[in-house]
Amino acid sequence: MSSIGVACCQARLTVGDVDGNRAALERLLHEAARNGAKVAVLPELAASGYAFGDREEAWAWAEPVDGPTVSGWHAAAKELDLVIVGGLCERADGALHNSAVVVDAGGVRAVYRKVHLWDRESLIFDPGETPPPVVDTAVGRLSVVICYDLEFPEWIRLPALAGAELLCAPVNWPAMPTPAGERAAEIVRVQADAAVNRMFIAACDRVGGERGVDWVGGSVIVDPGGWPLAGPMSAPWTGCLVAECRLDEARDKHVSEHNDVLADRRPELYRRFVDREVRGHEAAR
Amino acid sequence: MSSIGVACCQARLTVGDVDGNRAALERLLHEAARNGAKVAVLPELAASGYAFGDREEAWAWAEPVDGPTVSGWHAAAKELDLVIVGGLCERADGALHNSAVVVDAGGVRAVYRKVHLWDRESLIFDPGETPPPVVDTAVGRLSVVICYDLEFPEWIRLPALAGAELLCAPVNWPAMPTPAGERAAEIVRVQADAAVNRMFIAACDRVGGERGVDWVGGSVIVDPGGWPLAGPMSAPWTGCLVAECRLDEARDKHVSEHNDVLADRRPELYRRFVDREVRGHEAAR
Repeated sequence: MSSIGVACCQARLTVGDVDGNRAALERLLHEAARNGAKVAVLPELAASGYAFGDREEAWAWAEPVDGPTVSGWHAAAKELDLVIVGGLCERADGALHNSAVVVDAGGVRAVYRKVHLWDRESLIFDPGETPPPVVDTAVGRLSVVICYDLEFPEWIRLPALAGAELLCAPVNWPAMPTPAGERAAEIVRVQADAAVNRMFIAACDRVGGERGVDWVGGSVIVDPGGWPLAGPMSAPWTGCLVAECRLDEARDKHVSEHNDVLADRRPELYRRFVDREVRGHEAAR
Repeated sequence: MSSIGVACCQARLTVGDVDGNRAALERLLHEAARNGAKVAVLPELAASGYAFGDREEAWAWAEPVDGPTVSGWHAAAKELDLVIVGGLCERADGALHNSAVVVDAGGVRAVYRKVHLWDRESLIFDPGETPPPVVDTAVGRLSVVICYDLEFPEWIRLPALAGAELLCAPVNWPAMPTPAGERAAEIVRVQADAAVNRMFIAACDRVGGERGVDWVGGSVIVDPGGWPLAGPMSAPWTGCLVAECRLDEARDKHVSEHNDVLADRRPELYRRFVDREVRGHEAAR
């Protein structure tokens, strides 16, 4: 297999400026295609923006999966021969989700709803209940999680066990104090997530302050060793970060002659002892 | 609670030179105490060295937990008022383990046997079958894992769920190619392990080439945010790395007003979907 271009479209977004956000994302999708990308990752809650005052406001900017934002991405995927993975403020019946869609020329291939909600998101969104989808595309086997999900290694194992070669992660990483000379903690965790699973990860962040929240702007594409192939960037940079990835390298889970990061797991021990700890934890409440 | 000194005693060791290795470790334990440490972590397989030709050779250098190496650490723990966590090539009945002991003035508090064996270790040692012990000491709640165990986040969750404040990790990190400007991958994973569990980790590495294997010498002590408090060091440095740690900070698992890194886990989802993936994996073999 030859390498393919993977892009993170790090956009400047504004809460509620759906038209402006869509236009900014479309420009970056064109830039991704011009730079040879076959997969383009967009930020979390890309068209709507993030810092909603409450559920009602988020509901007002939410769309169904067959709404104009994803329809636009489908048109772009066809025009530009891209697989697009982007974050969507999703209405589905009466539920409101922080979702991400995987779209290619054929249409919507998968919808993922964020399971681990960050901070005030738990007051706004309904959490997802299903695992990261794993999608066979023309360029490789992709999966998707969203932002805070990346901090739960048990969750990141699922797409790895299901054979994902590239994990696409729309994120909105809030800027936190970081010691001088250190990368943002979120980037370190992406590196570790990739390395312990031997898969590629493309995390696409955003920039643009919003109601007191600033973002890291730390988009990064890492290889199965956890090493950055492109980025990490930092705010206020916006643009299209592209890395050439040989996705088939993620199929080889060996890290020494006798070690395979997935086969070396001891799931029966994890299950037995985690169950014990979780029961103890629940009993202690 | 006030802070306590935590030390990593990064020694130069030689396979089979048990007397020389014990003496080097004892000097470093004295240095740790002189520098105010109350907890001292030693490398993996500290007295025996690492690069055994085969099981027979390892067996020859192995000792029971009541053998001279651990007895010496007990004497040092009493003399120096230290909790010592060190790696031991352990004989137990007919079994041979890559183990670590937790020793304080009262004696051996816990023995842990490495579960995830690295490379040729699987030809030499019997894997452990029990989780990292969690030990209440005079200075805080400690746990212990060994080297490659750190690459299995499911395993690192166990001591975190059991309330460990400081995870002590005797390691022998083999030097691998690392891109310019990057930390060794093992260090990045320690940072992530600490951050996703909000606990301190002290990883004590070694130096000294041995039968073609070189070590990173990357001892590091990280805080619950995953930030290095001391180190990471690099070979050929040897000595006593000390950090002041307020271990009670590891009891607070909040990362935002609405988030707690342990309470935010979705264990019922992990169990259900990991079981499905593992069954699929086994069926595919």
